[in-house]
Amino acid sequence: MRDPSQPRPEDYPRPAVAVDLVIFTVIDTDLKLLLIRRGQEPFEGNWALPGGFVRVGDAVDDQGESVEEAAHRELYEETGLPTGSAWLEQLYTFGAPYRDPRMRVISVAWCALIRPDLAPLVTAGTDAREAQWWSLTQLPALAFDHDKMVSVALDRVQGKLDYTPIAFELVPPTFTISELREVFEAIKGGAYDRGNFRRRFNRMLQDGTIILAPGKRQTASRPARVYAFNRSR
Amino acid sequence: MRDPSQPRPEDYPRPAVAVDLVIFTVIDTDLKLLLIRRGQEPFEGNWALPGGFVRVGDAVDDQGESVEEAAHRELYEETGLPTGSAWLEQLYTFGAPYRDPRMRVISVAWCALIRPDLAPLVTAGTDAREAQWWSLTQLPALAFDHDKMVSVALDRVQGKLDYTPIAFELVPPTFTISELREVFEAIKGGAYDRGNFRRRFNRMLQDGTIILAPGKRQTASRPARVYAFNRSR
Repeated sequence: MRDPSQPRPEDYPRPAVAVDLVIFTVIDTDLKLLLIRRGQEPFEGNWALPGGFVRVGDAVDDQGESVEEAAHRELYEETGLPTGSAWLEQLYTFGAPYRDPRMRVISVAWCALIRPDLAPLVTAGTDAREAQWWSLTQLPALAFDHDKMVSVALDRVQGKLDYTPIAFELVPPTFTISELREVFEAIKGGAYDRGNFRRRFNRMLQDGTIILAPGKRQTASRPARVYAFNRSR
Repeated sequence: MRDPSQPRPEDYPRPAVAVDLVIFTVIDTDLKLLLIRRGQEPFEGNWALPGGFVRVGDAVDDQGESVEEAAHRELYEETGLPTGSAWLEQLYTFGAPYRDPRMRVISVAWCALIRPDLAPLVTAGTDAREAQWWSLTQLPALAFDHDKMVSVALDRVQGKLDYTPIAFELVPPTFTISELREVFEAIKGGAYDRGNFRRRFNRMLQDGTIILAPGKRQTASRPARVYAFNRSR
């Protein structure tokens, strides 16, 4: 039974809710982050993560889109890639007061991984000033609390590298053993022991995680075998 | 530059934002979940996770409490325990439309772990119909999408068992080796190999994760050594 002297939940002030996307790729053996230059206040002219508000319906029979739908929609609007062509996972919800000076905004941060063969398409259609891949080692100052979101995303991806097949989201559909090792090194931000990597690679080949693909890749030295991730497993 | 013909972000409809708490403890070697019987619509009379709305200020210079503050506030209001006496971690944000029939509510779900020696205090002060510890194996139908939240929380805790010291949040300050193994088994929902457990225990004793505590505990057979988790590490 509701106490009629108390305000109803419907009557309390509400926050705006946004999604923000930490989008990584690997280009030239370097982990890169997609940033957008803001065209409006607050932080006009600063670099920021792509994102936007969750669409909330304005009626009992129209409650709008889910948070997952909002994240997917923003990802494909911001990258121009076909739906389903990227890995996407919810990271953490950032809800400190004053993180946006205009009004109370709670943001659900997501992490996305884009294959390197698709990465150039992301920035091809846009004005270079508007969307750019940035090296993690040379990031500009970011708007809002977006530096914290990047830090949480990097921890998550690094943590998943050793016990999930996340690295395969950052290689082309077929890859050489060197290309896969370079992705491991790009995520870790440093050298990955070649012997350990070779043993892990062989284990994945034996258990069917990786399969040999047809053809060979020309490299600087000799033609290299190419492999593919076995998604059916 | 904002297009003045477009509505400003401040003008769009907004969701209500809540926090919900999946609170576990271990009682009699069984993993238990704290549920509250709802005293109001929707789902009046049903069992639900404890939770509440995030306090959002109504002015530019009052943006209210953070999502973390809301989770801690609800945890200590609902359990009556002293602040800081439980482990609390953000799980996932649930934001499907129509998850609450009244209005659009986005809920940030959190997982909390309560030590078994504190668990009886949680329900001692409340009417037994209002707050109860439920065995995970005998849960009633839950309000809203709370069954999904419980499932995500259980996965998280089970996943963390093997590579973090999370089990120590579910034992009293001092514990016997059997008591610690029972917590592992309660979380896993089944037997934990005694040889493997003993080896892991010895490793933690050697590396200083666990230290020998003074005194012995009377058990059914013979007095057992007691240990403590070394929080300073």
